[in-house]
Amino acid sequence: MSKNSTAKNVAQKLIEAHLVEGEMNATEPIAIAIDQTLTQDATGTMVMLELEAMGLDRVKTELSAQYVDHNLIQGDNKNPDDHFFLQSSAARLGVWFSRAGNGVSHPTHQQHFGKPGKTLLGSDSHTPAAGSMGMLAIGAGGIDVAMAMAGEPFHLKMPEIWGVKLTGKLNDWVSAKDVILEMLRRHGVDGGSGRIIEYYGPGLETLSAMDRHVIANMGAELGATTSVFPSDEAVKGFLTAVGRGDDWQELKADEGADYDVHETIELSSVEPLIAKPSSPGKVVPVREVAGEPLSQAYIGSSANPGYRDLAIAAAMVKGRQIHDWISFDINPTSRSILETLVRDGHVASLLGAGARLHQAGCNGCIGMGQAPANDTNSLRTTPRNFPGRSGTREDRVFLCSPETATASALRGEITDPRDLDFAYPLIEEPASPIINTQNLFAPLEEEEARKVELIKGPNIESLPQFEPLEESFELPILVKAGDDVSTDEIMPAGSEVLPYRSNIPRIAEFSLRGVDESYVEQAREKGDHIIVAGANYGQGSSREHAAIAPRYLGLRLVIAKSFARIHWQNLINFGVLPLTFASDDDYERVRAGESLSFESLHEALKQGDTLKARGASGEIALKHGLSSRQVEVLLAGGLINWMRANKKAA
Amino acid sequence: MSKNSTAKNVAQKLIEAHLVEGEMNATEPIAIAIDQTLTQDATGTMVMLELEAMGLDRVKTELSAQYVDHNLIQGDNKNPDDHFFLQSSAARLGVWFSRAGNGVSHPTHQQHFGKPGKTLLGSDSHTPAAGSMGMLAIGAGGIDVAMAMAGEPFHLKMPEIWGVKLTGKLNDWVSAKDVILEMLRRHGVDGGSGRIIEYYGPGLETLSAMDRHVIANMGAELGATTSVFPSDEAVKGFLTAVGRGDDWQELKADEGADYDVHETIELSSVEPLIAKPSSPGKVVPVREVAGEPLSQAYIGSSANPGYRDLAIAAAMVKGRQIHDWISFDINPTSRSILETLVRDGHVASLLGAGARLHQAGCNGCIGMGQAPANDTNSLRTTPRNFPGRSGTREDRVFLCSPETATASALRGEITDPRDLDFAYPLIEEPASPIINTQNLFAPLEEEEARKVELIKGPNIESLPQFEPLEESFELPILVKAGDDVSTDEIMPAGSEVLPYRSNIPRIAEFSLRGVDESYVEQAREKGDHIIVAGANYGQGSSREHAAIAPRYLGLRLVIAKSFARIHWQNLINFGVLPLTFASDDDYERVRAGESLSFESLHEALKQGDTLKARGASGEIALKHGLSSRQVEVLLAGGLINWMRANKKAA
Repeated sequence: MSKNSTAKNVAQKLIEAHLVEGEMNATEPIAIAIDQTLTQDATGTMVMLELEAMGLDRVKTELSAQYVDHNLIQGDNKNPDDHFFLQSSAARLGVWFSRAGNGVSHPTHQQHFGKPGKTLLGSDSHTPAAGSMGMLAIGAGGIDVAMAMAGEPFHLKMPEIWGVKLTGKLNDWVSAKDVILEMLRRHGVDGGSGRIIEYYGPGLETLSAMDRHVIANMGAELGATTSVFPSDEAVKGFLTAVGRGDDWQELKADEGADYDVHETIELSSVEPLIAKPSSPGKVVPVREVAGEPLSQAYIGSSANPGYRDLAIAAAMVKGRQIHDWISFDINPTSRSILETLVRDGHVASLLGAGARLHQAGCNGCIGMGQAPANDTNSLRTTPRNFPGRSGTREDRVFLCSPETATASALRGEITDPRDLDFAYPLIEEPASPIINTQNLFAPLEEEEARKVELIKGPNIESLPQFEPLEESFELPILVKAGDDVSTDEIMPAGSEVLPYRSNIPRIAEFSLRGVDESYVEQAREKGDHIIVAGANYGQGSSREHAAIAPRYLGLRLVIAKSFARIHWQNLINFGVLPLTFASDDDYERVRAGESLSFESLHEALKQGDTLKARGASGEIALKHGLSSRQVEVLLAGGLINWMRANKKAA
Repeated sequence: MSKNSTAKNVAQKLIEAHLVEGEMNATEPIAIAIDQTLTQDATGTMVMLELEAMGLDRVKTELSAQYVDHNLIQGDNKNPDDHFFLQSSAARLGVWFSRAGNGVSHPTHQQHFGKPGKTLLGSDSHTPAAGSMGMLAIGAGGIDVAMAMAGEPFHLKMPEIWGVKLTGKLNDWVSAKDVILEMLRRHGVDGGSGRIIEYYGPGLETLSAMDRHVIANMGAELGATTSVFPSDEAVKGFLTAVGRGDDWQELKADEGADYDVHETIELSSVEPLIAKPSSPGKVVPVREVAGEPLSQAYIGSSANPGYRDLAIAAAMVKGRQIHDWISFDINPTSRSILETLVRDGHVASLLGAGARLHQAGCNGCIGMGQAPANDTNSLRTTPRNFPGRSGTREDRVFLCSPETATASALRGEITDPRDLDFAYPLIEEPASPIINTQNLFAPLEEEEARKVELIKGPNIESLPQFEPLEESFELPILVKAGDDVSTDEIMPAGSEVLPYRSNIPRIAEFSLRGVDESYVEQAREKGDHIIVAGANYGQGSSREHAAIAPRYLGLRLVIAKSFARIHWQNLINFGVLPLTFASDDDYERVRAGESLSFESLHEALKQGDTLKARGASGEIALKHGLSSRQVEVLLAGGLINWMRANKKAA
C-alpha cells in the first residue's frame, strides 16, 4: 500500500479521524481518541475499582455503557453484589447501565448505541463486533478502558490493514459463521495478529448488519486488532429498524483505496465448516466429522447473536423433535431479540421441539452453566472452544453455525445441514424488532450522580499495589508453557471462578490452572518469578485478571515466542515485563526450574529493543518491542502507579 | 373420631384402599401399596444406584417417573453426567423420563400423571402437592421410593386426620399461598407432624386444582405427612383441560365423616401474609413489614407453580416497569406452562417490564442460582426460607404470594398488594393449555429396556457399605444442635453441593455445614459418634444425603427432643439410630464433647420403647418409637443390608 495515497480505506478513515499521536505507518505507535466504551460485569468491576483508585468523578467519553451479561449465575451473594456495585458505580460516573436480563453487551450495544464513524473501546475481546457498523471497535484490558473513560487516548501499534474482498453469495444452509470459520481455516488463530481486517466487495450486499457482526466478532479468534465493515445501506437498514436512522452516516473506502494485505472469499464456494476441539483454528468441513455422536447443541453467544441466528434454529425445529439424547440449549442474546422471537412464534417452536430456554446473556459461552457431559461432543455457535472453557475439564467442544448445530441436534449426530430432507427456511431480520429501552438506565445528571454511594459487597476488595521491577535481579522460571496458551488457561472463567472477579487475592488461587496445577503453590513458595511460553501466549479473552492475578503471586516477567495483543498490553499495564526470544532456539534451551539473571535492566529497556539474560546454559538474547511510553509504565510498576506519578507531576 | 364410624373421609378412603398391613388407628404402624413413584435428579441418582445395588430389572409400580428439574446449572460435567445416568437408568427400568427443560416434577406430574384415588411416593418432600387431585401423595427418602419401585409397600405410622374446613371466598389480591401461610401462622413448622391435613367445605369451590396444589405443597412446611383434597368438579375440569378427562373419578368424604382434629378457615378473612426470615413458620401480615427495602422478587417453584401464579405477575407488570434496583426473577415451573404463557402474551409482558426469564425448573428454590445480594431482602413465592438455602449465607428470604412479590417488585419495597393503585387482574387457568408430551419419554418395552446400558460419569460412585450397630459401646457427642434444624443445614443444596449428589464420599465434606463447621474435621478425627439436637430435627427437604453422608462420617445415633418424619425414617434406613429424650431436661444436661455409653442395646430395642444411656452426669432415659420392622432394619445396619439378608433367606 502506498503510504502517500490519498485514497483511504475504511480503517484508515476511522483511525485518521481519531488520531491524536503518531503516524499511520504499520507497527509504529499511535494513539487514538475513544468516543465510546463498553464494559461487562466480568471485567467491569475491576474497571470501576480502577476508576475509584484514580478518583474519577464522571466519565469523559461521549458514551460509556456498563453491561451485566457474564456473571448471571448467582450461586451465592458474590455475583449479585457485583451487579449492585456496577449499577451504583455506573450511576455515580455517568455511565449507561444495562441490567441483568438485557443480554450480551455486543448485540445490545450495537442495537442501542452503535454509530458509524465512532471509536469504541471495550473490556471484552469481542468488542470488534461493532466493526459491523463502520465503527473502529477494539477489545482491551480493563485498565485501558478505564483510561479511556477518564479521557485518555488509546495507545496501540498501527496495524496493517488486511482487505478481504467478498464476492458472490452464500448458498442455502451456509451462513456468516461459515465465512469467519473459512478465514480461520485459512489463517489459524494468529493469522490476524497486528492487523485490522477490512471486508469489502460486492458480496457485502448479501450480508446483513448482524451477519457482519458474526464475522467481525470472531475476527478476535484470528488475533486481529479489529475487523471493520463499511457503513452502507445494510447498516442504514439496521439503524432504521431499531429506530435510530438519524445515527446513520455513510462510511466507505475511497475509490482506489488499497490494503497492506489482500484476500478474496467467493461466498458461493464456502461450505458448512466446523472448528474441532479445542481451538477455533482447527476448522474442517462439517462433512469430515459428520456422523460423530453428540450430547449437546448450543445456540447463542455474541458469535451468533442476531434474531436470524436464533430464528433459523427455531424454523428448522418447528414441528419436529430434538433427538432424545441431546440437550438443545438456547441462549437468547438480548432482551429485545428474545421479545421479538416470542412475538414471532419462534420461542414457541423451540420449546415445542424440546429446547431448553435459558436467560438472555453470555451463559455457557463463558462457562456459566451448560457445561457438557463428560467425554461427549458439544456443538456450539459460540466463538471459542479452548480446553475447559465450557466448564467440563475434559470437554470436546466444536464451533459451528446455527444451521449445523440445529441439524445435528435433530439427527443426534454431527450433520451437514445440506443433508437434511427439508428446504432451507428463509429468515430475514425483522423490519420492526421490539426495542426495549426501559431496561437500560441512562446516566444521571451530574449533581444527582455525585450523591450516589457505591454499594460494595464483602467480596469486593481494593486493588493490590505493585512494586516496580528492580534494576538487576535473578528469578526462577516456574512454568514453561507451549504455544497458543489462552487466557482461559491462565485464569479460568466459569461459574466457580468468575464470582471472584472483584477479589484479586482470592481469584489468584486459580491462576494457570489450565497450564500447571502446581503453579500457585510454587509461586507462594518461591515468590517473584518468570513464566516462559511458546507462540501466541495469552490468546482469547481480554480479561486482565490473567495478568493481575499472576502478578499478585509474584510474576515479574513473561518470556514467549510471541504474545497475543491484549494480554501483552495487560501484562505491561500491571508491571509485568513481556519479552520475546530473539531466537526461538533459546525457547528450547531454557528449562522450568532454572533461574535467569538480568543486569541493568532499566537502562537496557530505555536504550533499545534488545536485552540479555543469563541462565544455566549461558546468555539468552531477548527483545521487548515496547514504546517509550510503555517502558515508562513498566518502570513505574504499572499504569496505576504511572497515572499517580503523572498526576502528582501535573 | 369414632374408629368404628362407617362414614370415611378422603384420607381414610385412600389409605383403606391401599392398606396392606396394620390397622387405621392413629400412631399404629401401617403399610400401604404404592401405585406411582416420582423421583427428581437431586435424589434420583441415589435411588437408581440403590435399585442397581438391589439388582432390580424393571419397576413394579403402575407408573414411575424420573424428572430432571433440580441440578440444571451445569458448572462442569457432573450434573449433565447425572442427567444421562438417570435417562439411561429410566430407560433400563421402565420408568418415564422427563428431560431437563420440562420443568419441576410436581406440576409436571400433576399434569401428565396425576390421578384421583392413587398413591404416589416421591423422593421429594413436596410430593404431597398431588394431594390437590385426591391422591395420597407422600414424600420419603430415596430408598423408601426405591423399595416402592421394587414393589414393596410403604411403611408409616397411621397419621391423625386433621380436617380443615374452608368457608367463604378469598378477597382480591389474596390467593392460595396466603391460605397455607395462614395455616403456618396458626400452627408453625411442626403443627402438622404425624397428621394428614384434609381440606373440605364450601370454600373449596372457589379454589382451582392448581390453587390446591399450592396449599398441599406447603403442607410439607407444617411437617404434615401429606395433605389431601377431594376429587371434585375442579379436578375434573383440570384433567379435562389437560386432555385426560377419562382419568378423573370422584373421591369425596362420606356424608357424616369426621376428623381427628378440627379447624376452620374463613377465606374472606385471610389477608396477604408473609413468612419472615428464616423460617416458613414466621408468618405475619404483609402490612407489618411493608416499606422494608428489597433487592429481589422471585416468582416460581412448586409452591406457586400454576399458570395463574405466573400470569398474575405478568398481568400486574404489563405496561409497567419493575423498580430499577430490583432483580425480578421469573422461573417457569414447566415447559407446558411456559409455552402457554408465551402463547397468551404473558411472557412478553414480563420481559417488557424488566423481568429475568430463567429456564423451567426448581432453580433458586433449591439454591441453584438466583442467590440474593448480601444483606438485602429477597421476596420469594418458594416454599422454604431456611438459613442459607438461597445460596447466600447471610440471606434474608421472605415467602409470600405472587401478588405480594410482584407488588413489591414494582414499588421497590415490601408492599401489600392491596395498596397498589390499579384493579386486581382476573386470571383463570387456561381452558386449553398447551400440552407437550413429546418431551416426556415413555418406558421402553421390556426387551428393549434390557439392552440399555447405564451411562455412569466419573463422579458417580457406588454406595458405601455400612456396618450394623454394636451391642454395647461408648461414643462421643460431636455436636449439640438447637431446635428446627433443617436438612438444608445438615446437608446443603445449592450449586456448589448438589453436583455431588451421586458421590457420597465427596458430598460428605459438606455435612452439617449449617450447624457446626468443625463437624467434618471432628468426625474424621474421632470416628463413630453421636449428634444431639432439639425439637423437629431434620425438617424440610427429604434428601437422604442428610442421613447417608453423616453416617459415612461415623454418625451412629441422633438423640433429639423430636424428629421430622422423613429425616427420622432416612436415619433408620441407613442404620443410624434415632432416639428421643424421655425428659427434655436431659437435653439441657448433655454436653457436646461428653461420651455416652450403651449396654445391651439390641435387646433393649427389641424389648420395648425405652432404653438408657450413661453419660458424665449420670443416666439418661431415652425412647425409640421404632416398629419391630424398623428395629430389624436398624440391627441389620440399614435397609440395603436388610434387603440383602431377606433375599438370601428367601
